Amino acid sequence: MTVNRPRGTRDFLPADTARRRYVESVMRDVARKWGYSEIITPTFEHLDLFTLKSGEGIIGELYNFTDKGGREMTLRPELTAPVMRMYINELQPFPKPLKLFYFENCFRYERPQKGRFREFWQFGVELIGSGKPDSDAEVIALADAMLKSAGVKGDMKLGNLAVIRTLLSGLEPEIVSKVMRLVDKKEYAGLEALLEEIGAEEQLKSDLFHLIKLEGKHILPEVIKIVGNIPELVSFEKTLKLLDAYGVDYSLDFGIARGLDYYTGMVFEVYAEGLGAQKQVCGGGSYQLIQLFGGGDVPSTGFGIGFDRIMEICPLTPPAPKTLMLVSKPDLHLKAISFANELRKYVPVHVDLMQRNFKAQLSYANTINADYVVIVGEKELEAGKLTLRDMVSGEQELLTLDEIIEKVSPS
Amino acid sequence: MTVNRPRGTRDFLPADTARRRYVESVMRDVARKWGYSEIITPTFEHLDLFTLKSGEGIIGELYNFTDKGGREMTLRPELTAPVMRMYINELQPFPKPLKLFYFENCFRYERPQKGRFREFWQFGVELIGSGKPDSDAEVIALADAMLKSAGVKGDMKLGNLAVIRTLLSGLEPEIVSKVMRLVDKKEYAGLEALLEEIGAEEQLKSDLFHLIKLEGKHILPEVIKIVGNIPELVSFEKTLKLLDAYGVDYSLDFGIARGLDYYTGMVFEVYAEGLGAQKQVCGGGSYQLIQLFGGGDVPSTGFGIGFDRIMEICPLTPPAPKTLMLVSKPDLHLKAISFANELRKYVPVHVDLMQRNFKAQLSYANTINADYVVIVGEKELEAGKLTLRDMVSGEQELLTLDEIIEKVSPS
Repeated sequence: MTVNRPRGTRDFLPADTARRRYVESVMRDVARKWGYSEIITPTFEHLDLFTLKSGEGIIGELYNFTDKGGREMTLRPELTAPVMRMYINELQPFPKPLKLFYFENCFRYERPQKGRFREFWQFGVELIGSGKPDSDAEVIALADAMLKSAGVKGDMKLGNLAVIRTLLSGLEPEIVSKVMRLVDKKEYAGLEALLEEIGAEEQLKSDLFHLIKLEGKHILPEVIKIVGNIPELVSFEKTLKLLDAYGVDYSLDFGIARGLDYYTGMVFEVYAEGLGAQKQVCGGGSYQLIQLFGGGDVPSTGFGIGFDRIMEICPLTPPAPKTLMLVSKPDLHLKAISFANELRKYVPVHVDLMQRNFKAQLSYANTINADYVVIVGEKELEAGKLTLRDMVSGEQELLTLDEIIEKVSPS
Repeated sequence: MTVNRPRGTRDFLPADTARRRYVESVMRDVARKWGYSEIITPTFEHLDLFTLKSGEGIIGELYNFTDKGGREMTLRPELTAPVMRMYINELQPFPKPLKLFYFENCFRYERPQKGRFREFWQFGVELIGSGKPDSDAEVIALADAMLKSAGVKGDMKLGNLAVIRTLLSGLEPEIVSKVMRLVDKKEYAGLEALLEEIGAEEQLKSDLFHLIKLEGKHILPEVIKIVGNIPELVSFEKTLKLLDAYGVDYSLDFGIARGLDYYTGMVFEVYAEGLGAQKQVCGGGSYQLIQLFGGGDVPSTGFGIGFDRIMEICPLTPPAPKTLMLVSKPDLHLKAISFANELRKYVPVHVDLMQRNFKAQLSYANTINADYVVIVGEKELEAGKLTLRDMVSGEQELLTLDEIIEKVSPS
């Protein structure tokens, strides 16, 4: 009987895993340099956590299950809710703002397609306890820095939900939500139909379509003409000025709606070059979730980066230390192991594990792409030396162990 | 409404996570230096994979569920079966032996207790395609090296199932399995009762109890007296000789049975100092699973290390780079950010995110234990310099940005 990998999941082979671990470490290092601390939350949570945040409608997309104690659980579909839960449970006494990041897997039950998997990885940041333009700007700049560190080129688009909400302030909250969702998905035909249905004024309709189609770095004067210079835009302008100091390139787009009600103001998305239809690699904004989960009124800002999409376009290659294989005749195998003990302090070392003869050992070294072979032979040992063979050039040198270490160690 | 963390799971706070990530990187580095490659498999698998390996009885301990497509799935309880599945699906063309390692989370539905969690982490190694004493020895030596790298002191106990199986060769396979399980759990009363029940010969009973109570480094002659010098012991002696070359300290214990039928010969366990009843930190051996999963006859050897237990006793502390906070009056805040951009190439840097006044910024720097504060002031800037304040000694110096980088960068 053959058992297969579950549909929509992946096995990562050695070369893939090495690349992922490397890019992960590069991005983790950036977050740390910005003063963010990593946290880890459980892979599954109570189902409530996500229905509270996103409504019952989300259940259809979840890997939810009833555990053996009869509790409704789910594999996490994202990490903002778990981090907020953790904040309420454990992090409230920490000094504010709290600067957190995570790198974890998430799960979504959906039809597998190119660039969308049932188990996928997210790098994310949550900045808890500040609602100032400064925190908005830092979070955007950090997203930008993390993407750049992975060699990803993308278009950073910024918006602010206050603008569209001000424009729609005369409508019922339920209608506003519907409009925001259609705007978020750029379903303009549906949007037009909805506005028709509710009998929206012509002015509102034309303002809305004018607004959501504006794009560029210098559209604020146009936007102010439509909604007035509301306080949220004054604050947003401060964020933009800070972004200039950070050296972040961006364009404005007030049609970014992020589709969820808990976002409070600034929102942003990054679209990367080199991907097909699924080219959004990062999304975030300022939000308020802690109250919903039973905590106080704590403003937060955060983002998530889709790590799998990053890996599709990331040009980085992990540093490859020189790899050695020790080769000897059977009677010197124990001696070879004692040299391996030393050399493994510095570089990856293979020894024969199959009782192969000398020639077959060399052939294995070749198959696994060893950079060097170290030959442990009688004559060499008598001279207190070993033969180092460069497997690419074929050149051989007679060297002491220390000379070999000196030669092959990463600088 | 407050949502809590699921029972038996953990949130890892920043200090905990930093320690875990560090020890993880140390152990990963050892595996790489031994020429092992990391792989990643899905968090959930088809339920079949684990019932095939361990029998239907395991279902009671699993986080299993039916997915929305009606498939029986489970969160993985361990990683040997997934790695073997991956081997059959994807790795068969690779040169043998294949040297793989993983570091992943696993799930077990059991009553939470000290040192046992429902989500737990495993470091593991699988060496596929060699059944020689050399591969047994390397795997044991690697387990030893990984534990030592984490500063864990433990007793390495080695056994070989062939010994007890030879002794029991006259009994029904079903009875042998039962005996092995009782031996594994050291349930001597139950073992005695079972042997009584099946009417085992006095000689067998006394040989068995004699055998499983022998312990030490030099018990092989005693063991040979009981079961004879079987070929498996000849091979096992070669493994021991290799272990001496690797510098591994061990004692022999032929009462180690590992409780599962797929182990073929050599088995080992490591018990660490400093833990309570749950002191086994590593277990492994040579096994044959690939055939069971629909592949060929491929001998393998591997082990798993319980990472959570390691973390309970590991004395390592992560390297702590110097942390800076840039402090300025509001009118120089943008200037502070441009210095942060530079300094973040070298060390973790915080900037004010709350529009706090100068004094409150200093106080935040103090609360988050910043090592240094960099004061961006008008007078300093006129001189092309910044003030670096050591937050421990309170000493201040007027330095250029380059001098600060030189002073705070990790060497």
